[in-house]
Amino acid sequence: MLTAMKMNWTNEQLWLRYKKYYTEFSSLGLAMDLSRMNFGDDYFHKMEPAIQTAFREMDALEAGAIANPDEGRMVGHYWLRNPELAPEPALSKEIKDTVAAVKKFAAEVHQGKIKGAGGKFKNVLIIGIGGSALGPQFVASALGNPGADKIKPFFFDNTDPDGMDKVLAAIGSELNVTLALVISKSGGTKETRNGMLEAKAAYEKAGLQFAKHAVAVTGVGSELAKTAADWIRQFPMWDWVGGRTSELSAVGLLPAALQGIDIDGLLAGAKACDELTRKPVVKDNPSAQLALMWYYAGNGKGEKDMVVLPYKDRLELFSRYLQQLIMESIGKELYLDGQVARQGIAVYGNKGSTDQHAYIQQLREGIANFFATFIEVLKDRSTPEFYVEPSITAGDYLSGFLHGTRQALYENGRESITLTIQELSPFSVGVLIALYERAVGFYASLVHINAYHQPGVEAGKKAATHLINLQKQVVECLAKQKSAVKVEAIAVEIGAKDQAESIFQICEHLVANPSRGIKKTAGATPFLAKYQLVK
Amino acid sequence: MLTAMKMNWTNEQLWLRYKKYYTEFSSLGLAMDLSRMNFGDDYFHKMEPAIQTAFREMDALEAGAIANPDEGRMVGHYWLRNPELAPEPALSKEIKDTVAAVKKFAAEVHQGKIKGAGGKFKNVLIIGIGGSALGPQFVASALGNPGADKIKPFFFDNTDPDGMDKVLAAIGSELNVTLALVISKSGGTKETRNGMLEAKAAYEKAGLQFAKHAVAVTGVGSELAKTAADWIRQFPMWDWVGGRTSELSAVGLLPAALQGIDIDGLLAGAKACDELTRKPVVKDNPSAQLALMWYYAGNGKGEKDMVVLPYKDRLELFSRYLQQLIMESIGKELYLDGQVARQGIAVYGNKGSTDQHAYIQQLREGIANFFATFIEVLKDRSTPEFYVEPSITAGDYLSGFLHGTRQALYENGRESITLTIQELSPFSVGVLIALYERAVGFYASLVHINAYHQPGVEAGKKAATHLINLQKQVVECLAKQKSAVKVEAIAVEIGAKDQAESIFQICEHLVANPSRGIKKTAGATPFLAKYQLVK
Repeated sequence: MLTAMKMNWTNEQLWLRYKKYYTEFSSLGLAMDLSRMNFGDDYFHKMEPAIQTAFREMDALEAGAIANPDEGRMVGHYWLRNPELAPEPALSKEIKDTVAAVKKFAAEVHQGKIKGAGGKFKNVLIIGIGGSALGPQFVASALGNPGADKIKPFFFDNTDPDGMDKVLAAIGSELNVTLALVISKSGGTKETRNGMLEAKAAYEKAGLQFAKHAVAVTGVGSELAKTAADWIRQFPMWDWVGGRTSELSAVGLLPAALQGIDIDGLLAGAKACDELTRKPVVKDNPSAQLALMWYYAGNGKGEKDMVVLPYKDRLELFSRYLQQLIMESIGKELYLDGQVARQGIAVYGNKGSTDQHAYIQQLREGIANFFATFIEVLKDRSTPEFYVEPSITAGDYLSGFLHGTRQALYENGRESITLTIQELSPFSVGVLIALYERAVGFYASLVHINAYHQPGVEAGKKAATHLINLQKQVVECLAKQKSAVKVEAIAVEIGAKDQAESIFQICEHLVANPSRGIKKTAGATPFLAKYQLVK
Repeated sequence: MLTAMKMNWTNEQLWLRYKKYYTEFSSLGLAMDLSRMNFGDDYFHKMEPAIQTAFREMDALEAGAIANPDEGRMVGHYWLRNPELAPEPALSKEIKDTVAAVKKFAAEVHQGKIKGAGGKFKNVLIIGIGGSALGPQFVASALGNPGADKIKPFFFDNTDPDGMDKVLAAIGSELNVTLALVISKSGGTKETRNGMLEAKAAYEKAGLQFAKHAVAVTGVGSELAKTAADWIRQFPMWDWVGGRTSELSAVGLLPAALQGIDIDGLLAGAKACDELTRKPVVKDNPSAQLALMWYYAGNGKGEKDMVVLPYKDRLELFSRYLQQLIMESIGKELYLDGQVARQGIAVYGNKGSTDQHAYIQQLREGIANFFATFIEVLKDRSTPEFYVEPSITAGDYLSGFLHGTRQALYENGRESITLTIQELSPFSVGVLIALYERAVGFYASLVHINAYHQPGVEAGKKAATHLINLQKQVVECLAKQKSAVKVEAIAVEIGAKDQAESIFQICEHLVANPSRGIKKTAGATPFLAKYQLVK
């Protein structure tokens, strides 16, 4: 499977194949070319029963079936952009009310009716991780306009204290005009909880009341909802929206609206794409085409990596957004029937033509363990054209590099899909989000997995909690010791003989942070070092 | 190979393995743990002859042998941090003179002796791509301090006109205090040439003389050197330094020094790492250990992707930097003896714990087509500790998530390497750069490829040039037509019948940019549309 298949077609034959497998979806301002994927002419016919099942499963899901059986949840991100489709009127109303509340809130912030201690808000500090950060980061970068945005976004998207210090340094003295927006469905995500506490401390250090500068997006009744009881405002997150598909809920709409991005455009694009991709006809359905290409490329087993190459700086984070959307949805241990699957597709990429200078060398000549997705944006810029040579623009080069690279890869038997969008706008970003959400759903049906849970992330969190507790035991133990002790002695002392390695790692971390008060005396080997609490 | 190998070891057994394969390199502030790679105890012994050959080849390379036979070039990035090792005194002197010139220039800029039309320079706009952008971006992000940096860096790293507009909007009215730094070894890289022309136009539009605000880093006698004859200054690039290993030449040192980063620290870290990793003893040599682990993991054929997960916001771009360094060096079609190799290792990753919320689901439970590299930084922050729970910091969580995830992956048979560095500093960043540069060199020896050329990138560039020329022909052809014409008619008209597909793509791109003056009349299919020049 990992060999490159060289197709010795002439350009004329390729043109015929292009005309056959290039489709315009004009209601979306989108076109998709599959001609450089080497599937046989009978492929779609062969896959028709499977994709029809996928269409039916998607219909049931959108009608409110429990599509996430492990968690007993409906999957409703499709309703966010067409609330009339929600299975209950109360849900429709909640969705519509939330969009209206987001817009009203953003308008009041822009007008200065809602303001910080220093006056009108100039910045928003978005505190979230995973689905609660990557969507907002992607949209902020795709549609924001430095200098012209109504509010400037900053992000805490990790539990790295130095990373937070760096963001706070960038905000500088403007914390009194910075709105803190804490996003967590459960309110239990430690990274976000830590970010919130660090932010709160920073506001307080600056003499500001955090509650008067903070807003939450969270589930009703969550831990965060309780913490945020006296904050400026709360917006709801629903259990039928997964983090990685939450961009068009308050999670993504609120930051976007604050920044000044047209959220109606985002929603309209996603709605239009949903409507088109509900059609159970492959040739008219770009999401189904994508899912079938992924299935073809990886033999239904993810045997090839997906390299995503948008030739547009503003779409650089789309590759990462897709990495999350696809890998967390598709990367599953079990089939729906409980058999072992070990499914997944590795997704990576940044942007072209920049990535050509980073790793096209390997893509063209090295290991053929991937297929590429080129994303082209036809409209180059909104400022007047500038010519770098007579009649030639920098945008012509961008286009030339995309198509040149696509050709160079294909000559060497490397396959690619090309998506073309007319222009980058809130509408087309909404289209891209919905297009891939549905492609993931279809692909999950094709390979018989649950795309809407993430059971594998718990193990790492549990192990981390265990380590945090172990650290407390280690520090307590050191507090009781009269002299410096070795790791293995600490392990015995706290009744955790089998945790020596973790204890070593904990001690090394504490020692490197002098104010934690743990001192190390080197030994003959790293493991014979002694640790002592000197505080 | 892609199945996960579950090792049913007890924690006690793992602790023994950890003690055996965890090595501290204290002169570098570095430790490396290989215990979670499941190689057998005879592996290093088995590989000893191959790695000894790699050590010998590296010695020859450092002594000035032609290590890049295709291009007939020496490979000398090792001399940059220890000029005494360069094979000729003239080279040593050039290296030392350049470092001195960089420091002097940066100091004069900081002092305002060299300044812009608006006074002291506040910003630097770095124009480059690939090796001339990713290193500077990585170091700027790893070591910069917003608000405290002497100069704020911005980047043009592509030929996307809208992307450049966005950067210029962020600079806003400060162009008169912005130094433009154009980096291109050959001067022939079109993306950089276009960026330079766009920047020049922006300066001129602002009433500024570009030449009085511009500096070049380029090869002596290059196209860019000629263009830059009347600029503020030029710094040299040498043909014995490849783009992806140029961070410690003027390419990386000049932007870093301008930002206020301690470049002596960077050079000292790389020098110390080079010295250590020259030792032809695997157990004392972290670069050799890395190379041998990559070889083990991917069976010497890149059968597993390398997922790079630094748990530190400042190292987020290191994953991308390594993606370039490794994939462009290792992703080769041919062995040194001319046989077909199709080598490579796919590299991706961003940062932890953020990526845990994006795709650890797949890493733990899905397709087992990867090995991970965790990068831990022991020192958490330079500001006072803040406790998110009694005695627990956000940094403790960061550490807990790293080790918890490492454990959770290993329980499911997913292998990982863990690099631990004491603190993030110019010295340790220099160490990381040199560590991986040499690991790549060793790995190239192990798999018998030339790590220092990139023949595969030419094809895409040539195809792009062809498309640019084709576009000119298309526009000339349309200028002559009296009425609207179809793509296939244009192809016939310009004598390029086999280029219909490219002509279609060119026309679609031009039409989407109204000021180009091409109008489209829709047809019954996309390929029956007619195009006309209306300007």
